[in-house]
Amino acid sequence: MASPFSTNMRFKFSVLAISLQVLIIILFGIFVRYDTHHDNGHKNETEQDNQFIDLYPLFQDVHVMIFVGFGFLMTFLKRYGFSSVGLNMLIAAFGLQWGTLMQGLWHLHDGKIEIDIFKMINADFSTATVLISFGAVLGKTSPVQMLIMAIIEITVFACNEHLVAFLGATDVGASMIIHAFGAYFGLAASRVLYRPALKNGHENEGSVYHSDLFAMIGTLFLWMFWPSFNSAIADPGVYQQRAIVNTYFSLAACVLTAYAFSSLVEHKGKLDMVHIQNATLAGGVAVGTCADMDINPFGAMIIGFIAGIISTIGFKFLTPILASRLKIQDTCGVHNLHGLPGILGGLAGIIAAAIGGKENVSASMQSAALAASIGVAVLGGLITGFILKLPFWGQPPDQNCYDDSIYWEVPVEDEQGNHYGEGHNIIKTEA
Amino acid sequence: MASPFSTNMRFKFSVLAISLQVLIIILFGIFVRYDTHHDNGHKNETEQDNQFIDLYPLFQDVHVMIFVGFGFLMTFLKRYGFSSVGLNMLIAAFGLQWGTLMQGLWHLHDGKIEIDIFKMINADFSTATVLISFGAVLGKTSPVQMLIMAIIEITVFACNEHLVAFLGATDVGASMIIHAFGAYFGLAASRVLYRPALKNGHENEGSVYHSDLFAMIGTLFLWMFWPSFNSAIADPGVYQQRAIVNTYFSLAACVLTAYAFSSLVEHKGKLDMVHIQNATLAGGVAVGTCADMDINPFGAMIIGFIAGIISTIGFKFLTPILASRLKIQDTCGVHNLHGLPGILGGLAGIIAAAIGGKENVSASMQSAALAASIGVAVLGGLITGFILKLPFWGQPPDQNCYDDSIYWEVPVEDEQGNHYGEGHNIIKTEA
Amino acid sequence: MASPFSTNMRFKFSVLAISLQVLIIILFGIFVRYDTHHDNGHKNETEQDNQFIDLYPLFQDVHVMIFVGFGFLMTFLKRYGFSSVGLNMLIAAFGLQWGTLMQGLWHLHDGKIEIDIFKMINADFSTATVLISFGAVLGKTSPVQMLIMAIIEITVFACNEHLVAFLGATDVGASMIIHAFGAYFGLAASRVLYRPALKNGHENEGSVYHSDLFAMIGTLFLWMFWPSFNSAIADPGVYQQRAIVNTYFSLAACVLTAYAFSSLVEHKGKLDMVHIQNATLAGGVAVGTCADMDINPFGAMIIGFIAGIISTIGFKFLTPILASRLKIQDTCGVHNLHGLPGILGGLAGIIAAAIGGKENVSASMQSAALAASIGVAVLGGLITGFILKLPFWGQPPDQNCYDDSIYWEVPVEDEQGNHYGEGHNIIKTEA
Repeated sequence: MASPFSTNMRFKFSVLAISLQVLIIILFGIFVRYDTHHDNGHKNETEQDNQFIDLYPLFQDVHVMIFVGFGFLMTFLKRYGFSSVGLNMLIAAFGLQWGTLMQGLWHLHDGKIEIDIFKMINADFSTATVLISFGAVLGKTSPVQMLIMAIIEITVFACNEHLVAFLGATDVGASMIIHAFGAYFGLAASRVLYRPALKNGHENEGSVYHSDLFAMIGTLFLWMFWPSFNSAIADPGVYQQRAIVNTYFSLAACVLTAYAFSSLVEHKGKLDMVHIQNATLAGGVAVGTCADMDINPFGAMIIGFIAGIISTIGFKFLTPILASRLKIQDTCGVHNLHGLPGILGGLAGIIAAAIGGKENVSASMQSAALAASIGVAVLGGLITGFILKLPFWGQPPDQNCYDDSIYWEVPVEDEQGNHYGEGHNIIKTEA
Repeated sequence: MASPFSTNMRFKFSVLAISLQVLIIILFGIFVRYDTHHDNGHKNETEQDNQFIDLYPLFQDVHVMIFVGFGFLMTFLKRYGFSSVGLNMLIAAFGLQWGTLMQGLWHLHDGKIEIDIFKMINADFSTATVLISFGAVLGKTSPVQMLIMAIIEITVFACNEHLVAFLGATDVGASMIIHAFGAYFGLAASRVLYRPALKNGHENEGSVYHSDLFAMIGTLFLWMFWPSFNSAIADPGVYQQRAIVNTYFSLAACVLTAYAFSSLVEHKGKLDMVHIQNATLAGGVAVGTCADMDINPFGAMIIGFIAGIISTIGFKFLTPILASRLKIQDTCGVHNLHGLPGILGGLAGIIAAAIGGKENVSASMQSAALAASIGVAVLGGLITGFILKLPFWGQPPDQNCYDDSIYWEVPVEDEQGNHYGEGHNIIKTEA
Repeated sequence: MASPFSTNMRFKFSVLAISLQVLIIILFGIFVRYDTHHDNGHKNETEQDNQFIDLYPLFQDVHVMIFVGFGFLMTFLKRYGFSSVGLNMLIAAFGLQWGTLMQGLWHLHDGKIEIDIFKMINADFSTATVLISFGAVLGKTSPVQMLIMAIIEITVFACNEHLVAFLGATDVGASMIIHAFGAYFGLAASRVLYRPALKNGHENEGSVYHSDLFAMIGTLFLWMFWPSFNSAIADPGVYQQRAIVNTYFSLAACVLTAYAFSSLVEHKGKLDMVHIQNATLAGGVAVGTCADMDINPFGAMIIGFIAGIISTIGFKFLTPILASRLKIQDTCGVHNLHGLPGILGGLAGIIAAAIGGKENVSASMQSAALAASIGVAVLGGLITGFILKLPFWGQPPDQNCYDDSIYWEVPVEDEQGNHYGEGHNIIKTEA
């Protein structure tokens, strides 16, 4: 058997995963049942049925964002595609179950969590926080570590989400409670897990031509379905429609500034795939908090316009500084895609609340929600970082970072880095 | 002109395809018309219109599973991507037309097949059987053979489906009538088409790094939209919602066990892309029959939990035995993704029926349906195999198996297997 | 600073993009607001809300076609994937904003453009014209040129669309006003931009194995969601359902003939990825105009049958002639996918109108609409071509055509064309 400090995951990973799944099944047996359509005072059974099937397409859009969007967005690294898309799937599949429990415990009916379409959408949402944090530590953690992060982060997320609701703040598209939260949680953890040996980069920490194209699959599905993300749990009717319209136009404006600044900051005027893959999405993040408010389409565009700029600038100038000065190695640049735009979204929500963008929403409570989300995230991320730093979770040594082959069977490559040899073969003659 | 035994498909394929399409157009002219909204006793016209547009997103999810899901799942082979995704498209496009006719003939209104959203969903479903069987013979058959298989298999499928309905059995997510049926049909055909020369494998029968990433596109779209597959034809309201919820949680649980066992069965504890691409989906197959039954979310999770295990174990230990002992070469391992989990689904349905999971469903009729589906499939597959073995369908010689270049124009490669030369060029200077 | 004739886009591109976005925000501030649900005489507020959420999934399907479908379809070129999918995104994100304005100005309410789901669908539609034209000039234009083309083409498109509506013609799936229009606009522009040095081809003007697979992602999403494209703005109920059903079957029939003729025209009977990626879609284009008419499913199939044939034949025989005789270099063969099938669609609409396929539709007005669309497109494309030919838009020199590296940071390659070196690296140690 492998040493406890080995990166061989054979027993530590499989035992953890199976134990978690057994635990979840037991908890589901105790706490979770179907929605029984009890009269909630203003809807009848048919209306509830209609709502389920009406929102199901939006749920599926969010589902695609979680599994294909986040998964493929991170495949840009040349040798880390299996982990990116594969561990993304693992984290999300575990996280949606754990999230159902952690969020549901705050909203019990007769001691039970009743599954309806909102519970499913929110379960998917809760996984997004971990997937954002995963981007900050991508390539430097083991599957075991990521499961542990998912357990802690989703638990903390559900508490913070409840706190924000308790404050009376609104965050329909979750700029604060998912994007800023996930980013600063991950960055705090990444700070604790700082690897000095990687401060001058790593030979695997780059893309190849086709890995950048795979990443664009992720970018586009995130970009297209973001209106669904920001509107899925909005109040039906005018609020939901506003959330769709605002997100649609914010994202479109964001693309223009992301492209413009990508070209502007490079002395030869060339576009950089990093910016195109990421900064084009910042408009979706930043319009989240006030997506369902009466900010007008041009207001949404202004938010997207700014988001595209700060995100691109962040990638170009801030990420290297974070790495060199603050010792925060942010593999995917989640600070630029989720952190800064998340804060921008929180600020936009404060301003929109101040000018009466939505009834019964106060600027001060929005401010408290933003501060709480970042504060809780940083604290939670730091604690998680220290837990993950314990030496027996199978984390990769520095030289094996950003490399699938430490945790995956990978097709043989030649010395030039070209993959061509025998890959997986289902009908193996020897088992 | 090519010899009748040549793999040159120029005339045999094009004449077959055009003839089939002409035949189908004639049959559609005689039998098929739009749904005329005749009063069916309990719905008015508006309700029927609403149903069409309400179910259309679920239809589209199934459509994506058929064309992108199945298509890309099979692109894992390093030199067989064009055939995988291309022949998948051909089979499905033909099959949905043929399936409309074969299924519709059992449900005529005034001698006509009236197209509504259910007919379209079922037409897509009928193609799934052939696409599953295609996985068993992938790389070893010609396009002509696959069209012939589609004609026979969809015809037999429609009969078996009718038989199962006649028995009063239920199979809303089609564990038995599509998954087990398609798998055992394909395996039986593969047995007849056994190629001794391939018993020690083939140099093309493996993946490369990026082909495994392409396959994950297929995996993820199948995984995400499986709740739609299992619920699309369920009764509206509580049954349909249950089917969605059960499938969602079964799949999530399945991911955890598939990952855990993938690591567990490999002595270095590494994850194997074969398992991740396939066994993560077994939970969707296995929960199919009882998806709309009152099995509770934790019941669905138990099914998914078991499915992930047996599927991974099947890939690791059973597929090599099938190949060496039973002479069944199962290229994609459909036995592990569709066969075993399909049987598990049938068994789960029997148990759920026995404990009263759905009114008016009997365990004995469920058992009969499972037995019938497998029996009919094996018989149909054997007969199809013998027909396909006739020497003039352009099947590839052993050395050209798993190789696109026998049926496709393929960009030039160098001797190392790297593709880089001239590929397709639309504006050719010489025609 | 770069010379005005340089391909360095640093200032000319970024200033143009930012200026356009600022202009659009100002115009949106003046003209655009949310839909205020004013009573339009036959619908109440709830019905309007239901319509938004009912059509939202169809909007999203169209959205996927625009961003993933068109984007990835054009990634077939071996070194032009970043530009294909990236500039596609840029054009579409700009175009949907510009299209909202240009189309909306023809339909003001109290001097305002009110955004509802139809406005969003039509905004996406308007971008399709430019994306089609982009296919004709792919690899030979700069991002600056493409933004200019988008400005002009969408403006002209909106006028022609209004003209066609004024004529009382119908074109629900836009065979004439989008597909034929976009194709002939682009071909006319391409004629003016003719590059004699490329008449014998270019070393980059070909595919590699995996670029052809990326392109299939585009093909399949276009193919699957085409029924949504052709039905999204149809009248609800029977017309919309017909549009879905007709497109579904037209596309299926088209696949069979595209495959058959692909094999037939190649002397070894092999399939050609060019035909599979493109001609399989011609059935969606060609059934567009009469998609919501009472042409019967078999009528739709006949249209698809013919479309698959003429598109494949066009790729094989017509495109080389266009290039050599008419000096029209059509990189993606849009003439075969959108031009010829668009005309076929217009003709089918004329015939269907003549035989009474839809009330109040006249064959002569349909004919006028087809002629107008092509005439306006050719004229607009020629003028646009001359504007784009001005020497200061940063167009690539002949030897850098079809090459991302002129406008993009691209991972290093070796002399064999294999990409393997350092690609993008987010945490750069030097900014």
